[in-house]
Amino acid sequence: MTDNVNDIRIIAFDVFGTVVDWHGTVSREVAGLDLEVDPGEFALAWRAGYQPAMREVMDRGEWVILDDLHRRILDRVLDDFGIDLPEAGRRHLNRVWHRLDPWPDSVEGLARLASKYIVCSLSNGNIGLLTEMAKHAGLPWDCILSAENFNRYKPHPDTYLGVARTFDALPAEVMLAAAHHSDLEAARSCGLQTAYIERPWEYGRHRAKKVAPWEANTLHAKSIVDLAEQLGC
Amino acid sequence: MTDNVNDIRIIAFDVFGTVVDWHGTVSREVAGLDLEVDPGEFALAWRAGYQPAMREVMDRGEWVILDDLHRRILDRVLDDFGIDLPEAGRRHLNRVWHRLDPWPDSVEGLARLASKYIVCSLSNGNIGLLTEMAKHAGLPWDCILSAENFNRYKPHPDTYLGVARTFDALPAEVMLAAAHHSDLEAARSCGLQTAYIERPWEYGRHRAKKVAPWEANTLHAKSIVDLAEQLGC
Repeated sequence: MTDNVNDIRIIAFDVFGTVVDWHGTVSREVAGLDLEVDPGEFALAWRAGYQPAMREVMDRGEWVILDDLHRRILDRVLDDFGIDLPEAGRRHLNRVWHRLDPWPDSVEGLARLASKYIVCSLSNGNIGLLTEMAKHAGLPWDCILSAENFNRYKPHPDTYLGVARTFDALPAEVMLAAAHHSDLEAARSCGLQTAYIERPWEYGRHRAKKVAPWEANTLHAKSIVDLAEQLGC
Repeated sequence: MTDNVNDIRIIAFDVFGTVVDWHGTVSREVAGLDLEVDPGEFALAWRAGYQPAMREVMDRGEWVILDDLHRRILDRVLDDFGIDLPEAGRRHLNRVWHRLDPWPDSVEGLARLASKYIVCSLSNGNIGLLTEMAKHAGLPWDCILSAENFNRYKPHPDTYLGVARTFDALPAEVMLAAAHHSDLEAARSCGLQTAYIERPWEYGRHRAKKVAPWEANTLHAKSIVDLAEQLGC
């Protein structure tokens, strides 16, 4: 099968790390709370709980929205760091994922792509979280799609194929854009086209992430604006 | 229970008739096809098939997206009118529901409301249909919600309560805005607040619809801009 970017009608974006800077925003909010903890380490620990927690839910055949998973992980991480945060503070902090800031190129890049394509999210974040984040960050989604639409988390095939089905499209008419090769690999195995977005600072300014191209991706872009330029938007 | 508009966090809109002019747009496209038929009558007949078709699907405990229901009804209506339209023409015409034009106040009204509230759709139209319509008409939804999110058509309670659950809100923190009292009544019985929007020409310029206020509604508005003004947006 040869990829053909002219077939693309829909571009679905991974969100955490790809469109918004979770590490920077969570660290900053934690720093503002004056807890006895390294804010960057706290952000990493919280995020590190995410994959195992999702796997546990999926293995049990359950469905839990990400807001609830984030809260379970937060309680455990606070415990691990020996921090006593009252309930109202926990509730507020848990919603930091609704307030994540975009990378500097995200809003312009999405808007330019939307002039030619249907541009949607495909995130494990729940719909309410993604909606509040879009209002906060000014993300011009044509449509918010979430694991919650399909009752499965990525990388379950139902999520990638669900985007195609939602828009009555063939898998090859959909491109997934993400900063994570595992997400892109799973999308590719469902027949989607893929674009890798470089986000070297996803884990913080002191932890450069490898962002070398993988040949299997249809496109490789330095930013969402770069992706828009490569696609003539 | 006393309604309090200060509680409202989310405004969910019915779409066909309330935000977009289905009768005007469908009539105009049908007129452009030069079929031997009164375009306004054709639009009414197509739309008239909608409620019974949905009820049939719900009674069987099935789920079918509205694009597919529209197509079934279209085939029947073409047959009733004795019109022979080739397959490609049927497919194109069926997607007129993705191309509906907004009422003149809709885009401004929704944008003003979105400065203060989460503004979403709650329509029996499927997500793909609503997304393409929003791009066509420039509707600035914060989030597209559809019967497809809940696998139930309105007026099933799962749809109204589903909006509240999506945003982790109480039913009274959600207002449904619609041009149809039956929709508003069903929402009210789930505890939502309600706003009636006057759309006297929903069924065409020759068929004025009664738009008198019903006391049970929280608000009564002449347009979506009027609703925004009443809510201080």
